[in-house]
Amino acid sequence: MKKVCIVMGSDSDLKVMEACVNRLRSFEIPFEVRIISAHRTPAAAEQLAKNAAADGFGVIIAAAGKAAHLGGVLAAYTTLPVIGVPMGTSVMGGMDSLLSIVQMPKGIPVASVAIDGADNAAILAAQILAISDPALTDRLAAFKSELAAEVSAKDEAVRARFSD
Amino acid sequence: MKKVCIVMGSDSDLKVMEACVNRLRSFEIPFEVRIISAHRTPAAAEQLAKNAAADGFGVIIAAAGKAAHLGGVLAAYTTLPVIGVPMGTSVMGGMDSLLSIVQMPKGIPVASVAIDGADNAAILAAQILAISDPALTDRLAAFKSELAAEVSAKDEAVRARFSD
Amino acid sequence: MKKVCIVMGSDSDLKVMEACVNRLRSFEIPFEVRIISAHRTPAAAEQLAKNAAADGFGVIIAAAGKAAHLGGVLAAYTTLPVIGVPMGTSVMGGMDSLLSIVQMPKGIPVASVAIDGADNAAILAAQILAISDPALTDRLAAFKSELAAEVSAKDEAVRARFSD
Amino acid sequence: MKKVCIVMGSDSDLKVMEACVNRLRSFEIPFEVRIISAHRTPAAAEQLAKNAAADGFGVIIAAAGKAAHLGGVLAAYTTLPVIGVPMGTSVMGGMDSLLSIVQMPKGIPVASVAIDGADNAAILAAQILAISDPALTDRLAAFKSELAAEVSAKDEAVRARFSD
Amino acid sequence: MKKVCIVMGSDSDLKVMEACVNRLRSFEIPFEVRIISAHRTPAAAEQLAKNAAADGFGVIIAAAGKAAHLGGVLAAYTTLPVIGVPMGTSVMGGMDSLLSIVQMPKGIPVASVAIDGADNAAILAAQILAISDPALTDRLAAFKSELAAEVSAKDEAVRARFSD
Amino acid sequence: MKKVCIVMGSDSDLKVMEACVNRLRSFEIPFEVRIISAHRTPAAAEQLAKNAAADGFGVIIAAAGKAAHLGGVLAAYTTLPVIGVPMGTSVMGGMDSLLSIVQMPKGIPVASVAIDGADNAAILAAQILAISDPALTDRLAAFKSELAAEVSAKDEAVRARFSD
Amino acid sequence: MKKVCIVMGSDSDLKVMEACVNRLRSFEIPFEVRIISAHRTPAAAEQLAKNAAADGFGVIIAAAGKAAHLGGVLAAYTTLPVIGVPMGTSVMGGMDSLLSIVQMPKGIPVASVAIDGADNAAILAAQILAISDPALTDRLAAFKSELAAEVSAKDEAVRARFSD
Amino acid sequence: MKKVCIVMGSDSDLKVMEACVNRLRSFEIPFEVRIISAHRTPAAAEQLAKNAAADGFGVIIAAAGKAAHLGGVLAAYTTLPVIGVPMGTSVMGGMDSLLSIVQMPKGIPVASVAIDGADNAAILAAQILAISDPALTDRLAAFKSELAAEVSAKDEAVRARFSD
Repeated sequence: MKKVCIVMGSDSDLKVMEACVNRLRSFEIPFEVRIISAHRTPAAAEQLAKNAAADGFGVIIAAAGKAAHLGGVLAAYTTLPVIGVPMGTSVMGGMDSLLSIVQMPKGIPVASVAIDGADNAAILAAQILAISDPALTDRLAAFKSELAAEVSAKDEAVRARFSD
Repeated sequence: MKKVCIVMGSDSDLKVMEACVNRLRSFEIPFEVRIISAHRTPAAAEQLAKNAAADGFGVIIAAAGKAAHLGGVLAAYTTLPVIGVPMGTSVMGGMDSLLSIVQMPKGIPVASVAIDGADNAAILAAQILAISDPALTDRLAAFKSELAAEVSAKDEAVRARFSD
Repeated sequence: MKKVCIVMGSDSDLKVMEACVNRLRSFEIPFEVRIISAHRTPAAAEQLAKNAAADGFGVIIAAAGKAAHLGGVLAAYTTLPVIGVPMGTSVMGGMDSLLSIVQMPKGIPVASVAIDGADNAAILAAQILAISDPALTDRLAAFKSELAAEVSAKDEAVRARFSD
Repeated sequence: MKKVCIVMGSDSDLKVMEACVNRLRSFEIPFEVRIISAHRTPAAAEQLAKNAAADGFGVIIAAAGKAAHLGGVLAAYTTLPVIGVPMGTSVMGGMDSLLSIVQMPKGIPVASVAIDGADNAAILAAQILAISDPALTDRLAAFKSELAAEVSAKDEAVRARFSD
Repeated sequence: MKKVCIVMGSDSDLKVMEACVNRLRSFEIPFEVRIISAHRTPAAAEQLAKNAAADGFGVIIAAAGKAAHLGGVLAAYTTLPVIGVPMGTSVMGGMDSLLSIVQMPKGIPVASVAIDGADNAAILAAQILAISDPALTDRLAAFKSELAAEVSAKDEAVRARFSD
Repeated sequence: MKKVCIVMGSDSDLKVMEACVNRLRSFEIPFEVRIISAHRTPAAAEQLAKNAAADGFGVIIAAAGKAAHLGGVLAAYTTLPVIGVPMGTSVMGGMDSLLSIVQMPKGIPVASVAIDGADNAAILAAQILAISDPALTDRLAAFKSELAAEVSAKDEAVRARFSD
Repeated sequence: MKKVCIVMGSDSDLKVMEACVNRLRSFEIPFEVRIISAHRTPAAAEQLAKNAAADGFGVIIAAAGKAAHLGGVLAAYTTLPVIGVPMGTSVMGGMDSLLSIVQMPKGIPVASVAIDGADNAAILAAQILAISDPALTDRLAAFKSELAAEVSAKDEAVRARFSD
Repeated sequence: MKKVCIVMGSDSDLKVMEACVNRLRSFEIPFEVRIISAHRTPAAAEQLAKNAAADGFGVIIAAAGKAAHLGGVLAAYTTLPVIGVPMGTSVMGGMDSLLSIVQMPKGIPVASVAIDGADNAAILAAQILAISDPALTDRLAAFKSELAAEVSAKDEAVRARFSD
């Protein structure tokens, strides 16, 4: 199976991104985790992106905050899909990160998920890899059922609590 | 090859989304175009999403504006990746559309591209399908080279114009 | 009397929405509380909304956060009035929730109250049901008088405190 | 049948609000149209709101822009539901109007629809009045079907256009 | 000397507005403090504003949060200058309060100071009353000198601390 | 009577500010109009503000856009009340101007009116000067009556138009 | 004298950036103009920035819009000061460009000027180069005097026009 | 070597700005620290800026919050480059400070760094002074290498941690 590369601009992003790691593990998707800065280690960013396909990666997940250029810089050097995770910040709750990631110019898309949406980035990566992987599609379907079951259980509980 | 399903909430979105259609054509990716409203034809949305994988689709592109629920509603019924295209509006230039699309809750991601980013939605879909399609990867690489060549040509022109 | 259906996208919304429950109780309006996710349990959302009128509901209150599609999804399947309560979030204090709820497209309105406006959602529901219910109108008028009396009492206290 | 009172802060709002008038007419809901300013004719606002129930109104629709106090001022004097229509402005596309209308403090709700959502205000008013009016409910259901049919027709057209 | 009327929409605003009270005291300006809600005690608001000039007030300071209509409602009933103090909220830090206060329509101004600008509201009221009161002008000038002296002292201290 | 000084940062502001000039004329308030830039002619700003009281001014109106420092710079040098008029811009409709004017730090207030609120700046200046000028108070009261009469006339017209 | 390098992400930025070119010419500062895209021609960006100092440049001006990564990408490869010019866009008037440029993470600054502030970027570059160039300092001082003279002339004109 | 002047509007900014002081020290750049308020000690601001070049300063760094006029006021009186540091505030996380600093009108630029970007202001000042100072350029290059080494070390650590 193709691997997913999780890249973070700073190790301080790790506490948010651990949800991404855990979700990929639960889907049994192989992955690597990297700390690469678009601005402080641009050569590493270039190298990672240029070699990503050859290195067996299928999707890149890039988490960054503020003027979050990481996803765009990686996307510049690869034709693999790049998912951007905008880190929450104090500026309008992360609107700086979101706009820096999502507003990519024509030609070089980055697929943005929600601010601090580490878990959804993993799920999106899984959905992308599952297109040609029926077993992964099954795991995604099972996951979707679990999500529904959790909500249904809570629904039961709250209905019981308020029904009198 | 898997098809791409382009869904719009309104036919008024078509003038923006034609760039998406054209780009998919240029990549020789088969596609269908639909007008489906999350709120006015929810049954059609459900049906499309539930059957999308079986109908041969690999990716869904959902374009909608304002309280843009279309991508999320489709994503609720499928494990295929859903790309959301926020339509520009008069409210902060489309921030209503963007936030309605990108801020999806845990479990059900929608991959957002830029506001009015119809072209990039097609490119992202191509990147996703190309993971397991070397010929499409080649077309994407060629496209990337063309983009670079266009910029380089403009660079030459502007350097010449201002160099004296 | 018609019942009110309070629907939440997540049980984490309950601590905000308890004010809604309490206010409906104080008006002696029958209600049910549900946890239904537009994206994780869409079938439950559809079923609830389609049957709401037949099940004796007069108004639906939908509380959700971020890309808050719940109100719109319910409104798609019913002609009952749907009141949306945008949950406060870290993104501009809940502007993502508010815009996702209030900016509904032509044809399918959702009536938005303030961010975290759980109490006001109950009062609005009461006002709606009171149109054809003189006793409830009396309770609303009494409530309005209490509100005024509370403010007047505080006015007295503060005038006394600062008058020397 | 209860009447709807459409109140505007300025006659310049009329070109947006005509959609509201037309929609109420299409539902055969009796209505009156007023120009009342919360700040320039506050006595008229007070009088209208205080007498609205006795004058046969069931719902008030208040359209205003910028520091849009009209809905709140009317709501202060009545227990009828008040629907607010934020007028689009040049400040973030009408965010000033929206926040002035929707962010009502505890106790006195105003039900906000979308910016410039004149049509939806009428539909919401109809939904409110229909709770105790089966004939109006039927007209709303028919309207919902027409909306769906319109979208379906456009869907057919666009599918045909792009299917080759 | 004319008095200043400090009006708050809620007694929870008092902890911010105490700086206003203290500043007026330091300028020896007579004042009254009121809790009046534009929406819960509109009659009190009307009465206060209509009688304010006759009751010896020269300026009204109105503090309110969220859909902050208090200043506008008071301004509707008086020709006295009304100063609005937007209370900080969780929505973009008080942008709802600010826009509800400052964006008044043509004809009825409210003079807005900064979000939570209780102190400056008092200073502005003093500046207004000082136009025809040379003794108060002197107190304002002395206050301005004190402000400058405080900054200069801090400047000295910081220069000393970092000069080596 | 004290004069009003209307200061603009640029002569391009004049087309908005002419409403201010006309309104002051209609109130028979003497005034002067100046073009002074806080950044390009700071010495003129300082001189104007320092001498304003001695030169017979009672109120300063400062209109500026973008990083609109003019009002604050004038307020630094005078104890006269300074009214700021934020010019509309393309950045969120003038939010840059508004925040630069209204968010003044403790000690030096600027009284902000609405974005492009030239007319209201004049009315506010009149209200300030009227505190000690009964004849001006009468003109303001008459103006308020005219405003009300205009709205009432429009109300009559619209009621007639839609009443059948 | 060191040269200034004006880099644009797209030739569509040229109509805004021509003011930058003209201002540098007026200061007799040598410059080059380039079209380089951080995402489409990243190798050209890298090469330009790495060689900029050796090629005789003292300052880089980078103009870009939307997810404007150009300035940051250039700054990653050089220790020369990089000035960013955020291009106006339809998203909150260019807030996407501004935040993408100004919110650079610790270690790699980009100096942002105003949205569409092409002229000021040139002046800032001149100010930077003038630190060690007395003749350029003189030209800047003369320019500052001209600016003041222009404002003073307009001030004279407007005073004359309104003084009667 | 030219000195850097760090000016703060308030000593409460010092805890953010200490990073600026420390960074300048690490580059062995001489500096002074001042507390000067554009509004409370405008004469000190004028004097500092007018004499800055003669006093041996090459760059001014101005930190201020809310309606942050300090940088603009200093820039009005000097041709030295002025770097503005917007202080984080509760209004959209410091958007008031940022817009007040960055949106300077044509003719008088202020170079804005990120909100609370004290460290980057020092680095930018160093980059500016390094244009004509090869030794400082070397220190900047060494600093850039350290930044890269730190990220690389973290990258190693995280790869090791997650590689099994």
